[in-house]
Amino acid sequence: MILKIMSSMKIDILRLREEDFNKALLELIQIYSDGYRDLERYHYKKRRDIRSYIKWLYKADPFSFFVGYVDGKRAGFIAGSKRWNDSRYGDISEIHELVVRSSFKGKEVSDRLLEALLNLFKGRIVGLWVGEENHRAIRFYKRYGFVETGKVGIWIRMIREER
Amino acid sequence: MILKIMSSMKIDILRLREEDFNKALLELIQIYSDGYRDLERYHYKKRRDIRSYIKWLYKADPFSFFVGYVDGKRAGFIAGSKRWNDSRYGDISEIHELVVRSSFKGKEVSDRLLEALLNLFKGRIVGLWVGEENHRAIRFYKRYGFVETGKVGIWIRMIREER
Repeated sequence: MILKIMSSMKIDILRLREEDFNKALLELIQIYSDGYRDLERYHYKKRRDIRSYIKWLYKADPFSFFVGYVDGKRAGFIAGSKRWNDSRYGDISEIHELVVRSSFKGKEVSDRLLEALLNLFKGRIVGLWVGEENHRAIRFYKRYGFVETGKVGIWIRMIREER
Repeated sequence: MILKIMSSMKIDILRLREEDFNKALLELIQIYSDGYRDLERYHYKKRRDIRSYIKWLYKADPFSFFVGYVDGKRAGFIAGSKRWNDSRYGDISEIHELVVRSSFKGKEVSDRLLEALLNLFKGRIVGLWVGEENHRAIRFYKRYGFVETGKVGIWIRMIREER
């Protein structure tokens, strides 16, 4: 009997140069649309709006914008700002967006994206907003130590104490 | 700004030669003990029993015994029999065991292990037994199309129709 590789998979989390971001933008828009397709209330619908939003996410803090690759294919991205002013906590880090293609939901790449950004935000309070009916995301963030601290409209505020 | 790899991870699912299985056995015993440490009712406790059990798993069908590696380190294993006689369905495939270290629970490596074995069992009915209070595992198998078809004592029978 011979040793055999039954399956193999590689997940890479990369920070993008501006030129690479621009090349990736079209696909990032697709990923966003695909990732939110079952969550009607919590995302931009128009392509132009999505495009502006993702460009804003990158510009806000290019060092806190990571793309997740599964076997060399873009699967999702996370975007934040290392320095962000929170009305309650003051100078914290903020996660603005984490989205992966539907086919990668509940998969390791989301964990890796979040872990990479939390690692960059080490020692700081981290905040994020999540849709009140996005139960999967809420559970996911709780696993990483985020707790619900408030609500504005359909959005739940979650905070993770510094680690 | 320079492109930077923030994190990288590789998952490999391998079938073992008998000599590699023997070399791995000690660590497979550790993985089993670690993976079941929070599920007191559903596993062997004595080291000798675990050892016999894992050896039986391998001998039962060496081609249906896969080990999952994360970044080159053994994280878990799955064991089954491609041909198994079920009292209700007759000639089916059976999954006897799937266990990963606690630190890898809910991670991609479990999915990859199961997917690799289901791929080998393609076109056949697949059965397994799972502890009635092992809710995480039950949810996990349901995601892959297994349905509860019966119960014996503390064990739930799950079946996946051929695909």
